[in-house]
Amino acid sequence: MTDVRGKVNIGLLGCGTIGSGVYHVLTKNADALADSAGRPLSISRILVKAVDEPRPFEVDASIMTTDSREILEDESIDVYIEVMGGLEPARTFALEVLGRGKSIVTANKELVAHHGRELMEAAAATAAQVKFEAAVGGGIPLIRPMEESLGGDVVQKMLGIVNGTTNYILTQMSVEGSDYSDALAEAQKLGYAEADPTADVTGIDAASKLAILCSIAFKCGVTSDQVYREGIQAVRPDDIENARELGYAVKLLAIASRANGGISARVHPTMIPLDHPLASVSGNFNAIFVIGESVGELMFYGQGAGSLPTATAILGDVVNIVRSLGRPPVTRRSYWSRPGQVLSIEETKTRYYMVLKVVDRPGVLAQLAGVFGEQQVSLESVMQKGIGDSAQIMLITHEVQERNFRAARDSLEKLDSVQEIPSVIRVESA
Amino acid sequence: MTDVRGKVNIGLLGCGTIGSGVYHVLTKNADALADSAGRPLSISRILVKAVDEPRPFEVDASIMTTDSREILEDESIDVYIEVMGGLEPARTFALEVLGRGKSIVTANKELVAHHGRELMEAAAATAAQVKFEAAVGGGIPLIRPMEESLGGDVVQKMLGIVNGTTNYILTQMSVEGSDYSDALAEAQKLGYAEADPTADVTGIDAASKLAILCSIAFKCGVTSDQVYREGIQAVRPDDIENARELGYAVKLLAIASRANGGISARVHPTMIPLDHPLASVSGNFNAIFVIGESVGELMFYGQGAGSLPTATAILGDVVNIVRSLGRPPVTRRSYWSRPGQVLSIEETKTRYYMVLKVVDRPGVLAQLAGVFGEQQVSLESVMQKGIGDSAQIMLITHEVQERNFRAARDSLEKLDSVQEIPSVIRVESA
Repeated sequence: MTDVRGKVNIGLLGCGTIGSGVYHVLTKNADALADSAGRPLSISRILVKAVDEPRPFEVDASIMTTDSREILEDESIDVYIEVMGGLEPARTFALEVLGRGKSIVTANKELVAHHGRELMEAAAATAAQVKFEAAVGGGIPLIRPMEESLGGDVVQKMLGIVNGTTNYILTQMSVEGSDYSDALAEAQKLGYAEADPTADVTGIDAASKLAILCSIAFKCGVTSDQVYREGIQAVRPDDIENARELGYAVKLLAIASRANGGISARVHPTMIPLDHPLASVSGNFNAIFVIGESVGELMFYGQGAGSLPTATAILGDVVNIVRSLGRPPVTRRSYWSRPGQVLSIEETKTRYYMVLKVVDRPGVLAQLAGVFGEQQVSLESVMQKGIGDSAQIMLITHEVQERNFRAARDSLEKLDSVQEIPSVIRVESA
Repeated sequence: MTDVRGKVNIGLLGCGTIGSGVYHVLTKNADALADSAGRPLSISRILVKAVDEPRPFEVDASIMTTDSREILEDESIDVYIEVMGGLEPARTFALEVLGRGKSIVTANKELVAHHGRELMEAAAATAAQVKFEAAVGGGIPLIRPMEESLGGDVVQKMLGIVNGTTNYILTQMSVEGSDYSDALAEAQKLGYAEADPTADVTGIDAASKLAILCSIAFKCGVTSDQVYREGIQAVRPDDIENARELGYAVKLLAIASRANGGISARVHPTMIPLDHPLASVSGNFNAIFVIGESVGELMFYGQGAGSLPTATAILGDVVNIVRSLGRPPVTRRSYWSRPGQVLSIEETKTRYYMVLKVVDRPGVLAQLAGVFGEQQVSLESVMQKGIGDSAQIMLITHEVQERNFRAARDSLEKLDSVQEIPSVIRVESA
């Protein structure tokens, strides 16, 4: 089935969990890949930190090198795969490769989220390609469908579960009733969370992924520091239970939409209706829900991380590049140079769930209602839970601008009758 | 953003619900499409049965013709879109267009499912392209992700809700407790079911779509008549209620997998666990769940029909073709000429739910168990519902070959103690 042209030489930059997975799948599925790509694929050289590191899959040590010049300057290499992670030296290597007119596939979300514009411009300058399907949603085909299949539509909104660690933790808290730190410890024990979980639990990882999705969907350059974020550390088992009573699930969502001539882009714990397709995405799975003007609602679901799913996405990109080697690239991303106009979180409109610990005396509810009214925050539902010292008010607002909600919250905190506001979570319908 | 080459002329074959939707989206999103495709797109001629037909979207009547020669022989047309439906004259027209070296995008599932091989061979002969993203799952990006993003993986199994009409009916039966005919009448009233619903409710439509998915996923030619099918007409509200008690939802699934060196391909009502992502796909939505060797579980969800979602998929294909106009096509489907080895349903292995009306006397259960044992059918669970005249046995088997299950069923029907077997539904876990 393959044509007569010779094999494609691939330079692999990095060979940890993902890199060795790429080597494994490429070797195992060599025939299917050659069939898809039209030419046999072969990893001809691998850049490693140390040859003897333990790796989840066996890799031919004879093609490894610790000298970056040896692989970057190897003229026989046709395509590079970057799976080192981190900003440097990944950025410098990628720019060098692109400068030589060689295409590169990367799984590095930070790299694309921070330096996307620089990469796209470097690629355009030499007619090389940058592909990064694996950077968002692991093995889920997402970037290419968004760029190509939806090329005839206008994306209005995206809501994504793009971080498996936090989704695992929130699922555990929901199913087992465990609190945040126990669920985190469990995730760490199972290898779903890193020893230092900061990037996951504070939403940094999700913000990088959302920046990339925004750039693709809204055709402009969005960087991760433009994305507002709140992590899941403050989510309490009580909130998850309250949410369920109210008909919602609590998820860390990455949300972006067109709003007021700009883009709203934010990552935060979110209550979504239990019958929303995202609500039942559990454990360490990822899913991205997209609303297009014409196509309506779409959802892409799958394993957002892991060595083999990520390897599949990388190899899909490699196949795509190999199919068009020697031709001018068809993917046009000149829009990445146009900076995205991201709104401040204060301008964002959403609904809010709030819990207040209040003193249990007549007139308190009227006082609260008065404060909300002053800030044009109207309430969708109000419930009192408990009486006496444990009295709590649980409410959900109608849609309101964050600025007004914050003003109301500040005023509430100053009231004598309000002892504490233990929880605020944003609420989305779709 | 668009380059200096001239506009792309599109010939639209058919202008009903979908065709007028294509015209509408192409006109409305002209700028975004030009940006994605690299050249402006324009529908220059439209083949219609009658110029004055009522259409959901306004279409320029001055470019309509009722003379097929006028559009098929128009040398200025670069790409064709076929949305006439049905086998003829769609097939003849498509082959003629491909014979002239022009690419064609079709939404016609019957055409691809019946004549896929002929179309792919005609396209290969003139280096033209056939694209059919809209033929399965409406607006859901599916064909291209399966072909390209999963090019480095091996698909093991697919389970799809690919018919919105039957999913709407089964959802209504589940939510409202209504019976099949009432739910069908409701679907017809809302326009989700045709006046003659045969193709939907008997699984013909789903079988065509599954044949296309099998061809793509398993890289061989599968036609719709190779797909085993059972419709939803015999599903009873009782079955849906029983299923829920047992922890399952009832869906019309299109299922395909690699099995015994061949392919198992079947469409039938199926019980799937309530926590499976397909179980919560409700109303007229579609979803296709794919298990790949490396990528693991994926699901693609969205609107499987409707004018605008389908138009989006068609225009995504058009953009893809325009981007590579004048270059040799990269999509290789020579595998379509290799006939798929589809197993007989008797060789398929699955689990079964069965309800038996039995006479309520001692020893009946032992008698049933004996019959199952003779045919190597082992039982996962057995429940008795009701007593006396209304006694029913409800059981679920372990995985067993259909051949053995059928033999057991035949023997059961001959027992004096079995009055009736009102229901048998296959059960899948993933």
